[in-house]
Amino acid sequence: MPKLKPQELEARRREIIVSARACFLRDGFHQTTTDQICKEASITPGGLYHYFSGKEELISAVIEYSTEETVGKLRAAAEETEDIGSAFQELAAFLFQTMRDPDIDNVVRLDMEIWVEGLKNEKLAEISRRSWAARRQVLERFIERSVKEGLYSTDDIDQKGFASLLMAILIGLRLGKLVWKDDFDLNGAMRMLFLMNAGRLAANFPTITLPAK
Amino acid sequence: MPKLKPQELEARRREIIVSARACFLRDGFHQTTTDQICKEASITPGGLYHYFSGKEELISAVIEYSTEETVGKLRAAAEETEDIGSAFQELAAFLFQTMRDPDIDNVVRLDMEIWVEGLKNEKLAEISRRSWAARRQVLERFIERSVKEGLYSTDDIDQKGFASLLMAILIGLRLGKLVWKDDFDLNGAMRMLFLMNAGRLAANFPTITLPAK
Repeated sequence: MPKLKPQELEARRREIIVSARACFLRDGFHQTTTDQICKEASITPGGLYHYFSGKEELISAVIEYSTEETVGKLRAAAEETEDIGSAFQELAAFLFQTMRDPDIDNVVRLDMEIWVEGLKNEKLAEISRRSWAARRQVLERFIERSVKEGLYSTDDIDQKGFASLLMAILIGLRLGKLVWKDDFDLNGAMRMLFLMNAGRLAANFPTITLPAK
Repeated sequence: MPKLKPQELEARRREIIVSARACFLRDGFHQTTTDQICKEASITPGGLYHYFSGKEELISAVIEYSTEETVGKLRAAAEETEDIGSAFQELAAFLFQTMRDPDIDNVVRLDMEIWVEGLKNEKLAEISRRSWAARRQVLERFIERSVKEGLYSTDDIDQKGFASLLMAILIGLRLGKLVWKDDFDLNGAMRMLFLMNAGRLAANFPTITLPAK
């Protein structure tokens, strides 16, 4: 192998990750072989081995790379916006754009495969959990900002609970679209989510007692 | 095989389904063999074959049986309650009870395995979709009832979209608990859901424009 400068090594590593992601998205986690990834990345098995020890390290790198990308976009919307109104507007746009990405069903299928695999592979589960925690942390900070700027009534907001709920909604929408197909009204669900969050749905709600912790 | 009366046949069939469910929940969809189910149900392979042609028919029957059970409980809460306040109260109790069932993680793992399997087995996917559609229909009727009884402002409610959102939240909560473990604040998320739905969170929301269909 020719001697490469650190930034060349890093660039080649990124190329391999992008190729691996394309394979995993196209063929699924179990069907993808390192041979296919070599072919996609135009590298020999020996060359690949210089960067990654095998499929598990490749999928981990793909998860980390995708998380970096998503968290970057989330932070741009949630934190690098001037006022909370435009932050909300941009987060909504990001959600709609993500859910309408032609690749979204493949992304969600791969997530599900990783979750199922993670039930028997704690190392992979840990990497996957960390990747979702990174998204949740951006949401938690955004909720904090929203509360500070007066969007939510402060008495009732439980930051971690609310961030958990939003994360659950996020994966629920993605899964619903993938597994329920036409039975699932994705656009309607997203619109109702924003209305519900803005308190626009409730007219005259009865007070109910929720079970204790 | 001794000649059994129709109700005896039906009772035996139910017993086999209950045994099969126990196996699928304990060992997962792929690990479970028909031999294990025979052992659990105390039946010979020949006897089992009289009721079910194989694993696919067994998992289908398990899905249908569980759906019947859940839909029955959902309808009792949503439709057989005197007023909308107690209906809400009972649905909340049902959600908390389901999410705290010691078996819930196994139930969700099996759901995930069925969804992944359904991506390459259209017959199984169809049975799974039908089972979730049955739950969604109860929710749709409940939303209709709630709107009629003045709980929601009628201008904004899109019944199918709202039912889809609630279904997404339901599976998102279940998955979040299973895959994110302690990172996921299930109790907090459920409380925030009811507050959000009751319009108790929003104080002063900016108007944002959602992307067009």
